Amino acid sequence: MTRYALTIEFDGGPFMGLQRQAHGPSIQQAIEDAAFTVTGERTVMHAAGRTDAGVHGLGMRAHLDVTKPFDAFRLMEALNARLRPAPVAVLACDVVPDDWHARFSCTGRAYIYRIANRRAPLTLERGKAWQVAKPLDAQAMHRSAQALVGRHDFTTFRSVHCQSASPLKTLDRLAVRREGDMVLIEAEARSFLHHQVRSMVGCLALVGMGRWREEQVAEALAARDRQTLGLNAPPDGLYFVRATYPEDRP
Amino acid sequence: MTRYALTIEFDGGPFMGLQRQAHGPSIQQAIEDAAFTVTGERTVMHAAGRTDAGVHGLGMRAHLDVTKPFDAFRLMEALNARLRPAPVAVLACDVVPDDWHARFSCTGRAYIYRIANRRAPLTLERGKAWQVAKPLDAQAMHRSAQALVGRHDFTTFRSVHCQSASPLKTLDRLAVRREGDMVLIEAEARSFLHHQVRSMVGCLALVGMGRWREEQVAEALAARDRQTLGLNAPPDGLYFVRATYPEDRP
Repeated sequence: MTRYALTIEFDGGPFMGLQRQAHGPSIQQAIEDAAFTVTGERTVMHAAGRTDAGVHGLGMRAHLDVTKPFDAFRLMEALNARLRPAPVAVLACDVVPDDWHARFSCTGRAYIYRIANRRAPLTLERGKAWQVAKPLDAQAMHRSAQALVGRHDFTTFRSVHCQSASPLKTLDRLAVRREGDMVLIEAEARSFLHHQVRSMVGCLALVGMGRWREEQVAEALAARDRQTLGLNAPPDGLYFVRATYPEDRP
Repeated sequence: MTRYALTIEFDGGPFMGLQRQAHGPSIQQAIEDAAFTVTGERTVMHAAGRTDAGVHGLGMRAHLDVTKPFDAFRLMEALNARLRPAPVAVLACDVVPDDWHARFSCTGRAYIYRIANRRAPLTLERGKAWQVAKPLDAQAMHRSAQALVGRHDFTTFRSVHCQSASPLKTLDRLAVRREGDMVLIEAEARSFLHHQVRSMVGCLALVGMGRWREEQVAEALAARDRQTLGLNAPPDGLYFVRATYPEDRP
């Protein structure tokens, strides 16, 4: 048995999410089906994170085990050939030790959220960003975001469907910046609660629009009450950027 | 009668091209139909450039005449509301003098061509870039491109369907640079022949792959023969970026 670590890019638009689901297509199913066609073996893919329907991946990490020996590069090429026309691609494939686990060995996860801050409807970016017509004050968003950095009870920013044992998480970074008409929000943590990034982005957008005072983000956090959540941002603008592992070179 | 200048963004994927066509949807038809719904008037849209099926627009300029008086901002909002769900959006709308003409007053046109230089199939960028698996030498492409800058007979880089009276054009700028795995080619001229940008990009890509010597671009130009064209790049990577007019502020 050989364990292969994959780096995966995907357009989340046509999928119900990363994880295999009974009621619709998933990234996991696309990869596992491609792997079966290539290897003749049924294998289960484990990924660094779960993503919701419509959420995209730039550098998702995952692993799968194959009994027959394959050259890692040839396996990647064969998977990509079989994944067409699904908008899922394997960017890298490496042999890793048997105890390397894409989910459990992962020590850091990074997301980016893209807000298209403009009046005109989206065309080329449709499904790839959240369009917010009202002008956003990105600096105010960044300032208010800093109240969320650190170890906190993120109950306010957690989906009712969240399966995490605890609402306590340590947010390492939450940075907001403007690039032209795009407002970009970067979030980094060891792990996130279900809907945490979208919930944080939704509240920051309210601050950016002037509908929330900057202090309201900290107040919502302190309330530890989902009812105080202002807004859950749509999945379109969310991208899983990278997963980091202890052995990664700096 | 009032003349309105529009700045238009579009995803060219679902269209047969910018210009109205008998056999399929066009950007022109989408805008004219939206204008009819808004104004009750049949009007003809004139654009700064024509684009082929699959070619995108970031800042296409166009104009249309309306008899009923409309506030320019409200006209833009109404057009955008009616354009949905077509991936066409009006980014700006201004009243201009009656002798301002989107096509004939235009003194400069700029395109960008995006090559995704990677082995993995495209996912999020599908239809939005040309995927070239073989590593490209962007510096060699830039050097060989300089032979095309200036006033030349561009017969080699001209579609057989080109309707221009003369193959003589003055290319003001052709610059190639790499940004990560994207190779970006910017082209600027007063006007271009049909397929000129895609034909130039195709030959530059051959140089980038090492299949053409750098001098072959100049030789192909000098041959003034379409048969010497190496490759016509696909429409997916081509974007009309902007049109400039004498009265534009610098």
